[in-house]
Amino acid sequence: MPKFPDYADKISKIPGAVFEKYRKKMDAYGSGMVRLHIGDTYLPPIYSLPLKSKFLKEHQNFNRYCHTFGIDELRNVLKDKLRDDNNLPIQTDNILVTTGATNALSAAVHSLLNNDENILVLTPCWPIFRGLVESVPANIIEVPLYIRLYKNPAMDIIQHLEKYLTKKSVAIYLNSPNNPSGKVLSRQQLEQIAQFARANDLWVISDEAYEGLTFDGREHISIATLADMYDQTISIFTFSKIFMFAGLRLGYAVGREEVITHLNKIMVHQLYSSPTITQQMMIGPVVSRHQWMKGIKIHYQELRDRFVNQLDLPIDKPEAAYFVFFSIRKYLKGRNFYSVIDTLLENGVSVAPGEDFGKGFECYIRICITGEKPDYLEKGITRLRDVLL
Amino acid sequence: MPKFPDYADKISKIPGAVFEKYRKKMDAYGSGMVRLHIGDTYLPPIYSLPLKSKFLKEHQNFNRYCHTFGIDELRNVLKDKLRDDNNLPIQTDNILVTTGATNALSAAVHSLLNNDENILVLTPCWPIFRGLVESVPANIIEVPLYIRLYKNPAMDIIQHLEKYLTKKSVAIYLNSPNNPSGKVLSRQQLEQIAQFARANDLWVISDEAYEGLTFDGREHISIATLADMYDQTISIFTFSKIFMFAGLRLGYAVGREEVITHLNKIMVHQLYSSPTITQQMMIGPVVSRHQWMKGIKIHYQELRDRFVNQLDLPIDKPEAAYFVFFSIRKYLKGRNFYSVIDTLLENGVSVAPGEDFGKGFECYIRICITGEKPDYLEKGITRLRDVLL
Repeated sequence: MPKFPDYADKISKIPGAVFEKYRKKMDAYGSGMVRLHIGDTYLPPIYSLPLKSKFLKEHQNFNRYCHTFGIDELRNVLKDKLRDDNNLPIQTDNILVTTGATNALSAAVHSLLNNDENILVLTPCWPIFRGLVESVPANIIEVPLYIRLYKNPAMDIIQHLEKYLTKKSVAIYLNSPNNPSGKVLSRQQLEQIAQFARANDLWVISDEAYEGLTFDGREHISIATLADMYDQTISIFTFSKIFMFAGLRLGYAVGREEVITHLNKIMVHQLYSSPTITQQMMIGPVVSRHQWMKGIKIHYQELRDRFVNQLDLPIDKPEAAYFVFFSIRKYLKGRNFYSVIDTLLENGVSVAPGEDFGKGFECYIRICITGEKPDYLEKGITRLRDVLL
Repeated sequence: MPKFPDYADKISKIPGAVFEKYRKKMDAYGSGMVRLHIGDTYLPPIYSLPLKSKFLKEHQNFNRYCHTFGIDELRNVLKDKLRDDNNLPIQTDNILVTTGATNALSAAVHSLLNNDENILVLTPCWPIFRGLVESVPANIIEVPLYIRLYKNPAMDIIQHLEKYLTKKSVAIYLNSPNNPSGKVLSRQQLEQIAQFARANDLWVISDEAYEGLTFDGREHISIATLADMYDQTISIFTFSKIFMFAGLRLGYAVGREEVITHLNKIMVHQLYSSPTITQQMMIGPVVSRHQWMKGIKIHYQELRDRFVNQLDLPIDKPEAAYFVFFSIRKYLKGRNFYSVIDTLLENGVSVAPGEDFGKGFECYIRICITGEKPDYLEKGITRLRDVLL
């Protein structure tokens, strides 16, 4: 079975990007190289496009294939961001630009897991991760953790994790800040997960989609920055959350160069590369992030306070992200859970049912407090309370 | 083993998009629904973007998640395009918008093939398809065809295909117009492939990336339009070729609704959806295509004539696309093939080596006649001739 530092068996059969092997020789010749090897067109699109002319002038290759690892201009500013914001002093070649964090997670899972191997998944967990592991197909071993940490922050995490470990365990998936619970793992909690991963040679897939959205002064810590963890960790980030651009489908994975090369192999055969223009569009926003990011974080924290107040139920106050996740068991009053979900829909409010987030959350619901305009969202919370109480 | 109409075993385990099951109830309630179920933000990006204000005004959801099958506005105009240009009278639900044709092909292969099953691949073949099948991992059975059809257009294709069929064969992959050979399969040739697929219950993956780039008045025929073929065919198209926008990574798959739903399952767990804005950007160009598409086709045909002339070697004149693919065996003059490739690179011209396109093409090279500006490309052909002759 593949365990760190080995990969999924199939990865060795999958070729890398076809022309990568000639890159060095081509670079050596310089700009005069006539590139007949690539299948592309010298023509820019001759139809109308909604892009500003300044952008088109500055990015004349906007319509063409790009380096499958991502365009260097974006990877370079991400390198600075990862050093300054995440304490990850890495090089450009340690970054793979992906089509959303989903794509980075998919590439990671397919690179690491063989059929029928296990990945420990801390729950509650983002629902799509399940199908992503089933696509291998490999096995998800659910480990309930985040909600318990609200009640018992000092719990022995290592002892807890050990109960779920088998010979088929190859990797562990964590997601801090967590969707849906809003839990932020502390340094002391992450240290325990790291110690467990090191002791058992587990790959660590660290989904950090909600970095930057931690509240009340909490720090987001990348597990890869803990002692001896970088080598066996794939850290995954996105433009969907704090950059407010989920529809752009842009994310990135960070890891050792060998890891990144393997992820790239999978990604190339899923979609070749991320779109060139979506990458070009994000160079400026990464550079300017300190001018606007703090305001977003403060605004979301205010929204959390406002809606936790309006909700006025005994729940764990989320420490990050933009969800509230709580059990409605005591409000069922004999009603079936899904009939309540239906009643909510009939009364004009949709919520995400807890079952999709893992075992043990069948009576939970997740609500998002930023998906609609605040005044409109207030109506939704009122409707929710009307059905529940 | 899965054969038409069955799918890969794992597909039944993979859940569909999480919130799809509530779409009907939500649509029934109408516009007043407060959607707390989705994890997104009501804020538009507050940093500068290179998009025209008219576009942003008309597409206020440009930054948000979209329907994972693709945005309806694009699927609707594609439906009209598929009816008018491809003779495929389908509905919107028969279209899945993907992140490039590569992504559509990947979703198709993963939806249909179990580990260790066979797919017949007509060669020479686009190199990346190999890794895409290895990612399952399944087996490629190469069937040399396109080059032979230049010499012998009336060959018995069925008899030829039967030699490669085994009990493990599940699907057949064709690509007309073909990259790299430029061959366009005629109706009579496609009829034979269709008959073979029907007789053996093979799924057909029809890669039509180069539709619209057929020369000398040749017709592009979608194999799905032949009698009884639609049900077992996945037809795949892209914005990378005639739309001159490979860097956009946008494509689409067409098939029965059940097929499309299955492909969507795979795609959702590879990257969730295609970017919202890249889809929005292409609505106009699809509608306006008849105003500019013909000019591109004529221009590319002129480029083919110009460079086939300049090349001045005894080759099969490509019938479509923008490649010339030919054997350089007689020009090796005792030199090793790859040493000639290296010499070409050292002399400032890169070509794609034939080996990547399949067995039997080890002495071939592929050159692209549209990837560089024509005057610059002329230099490349001169350098190529200097090294070869």
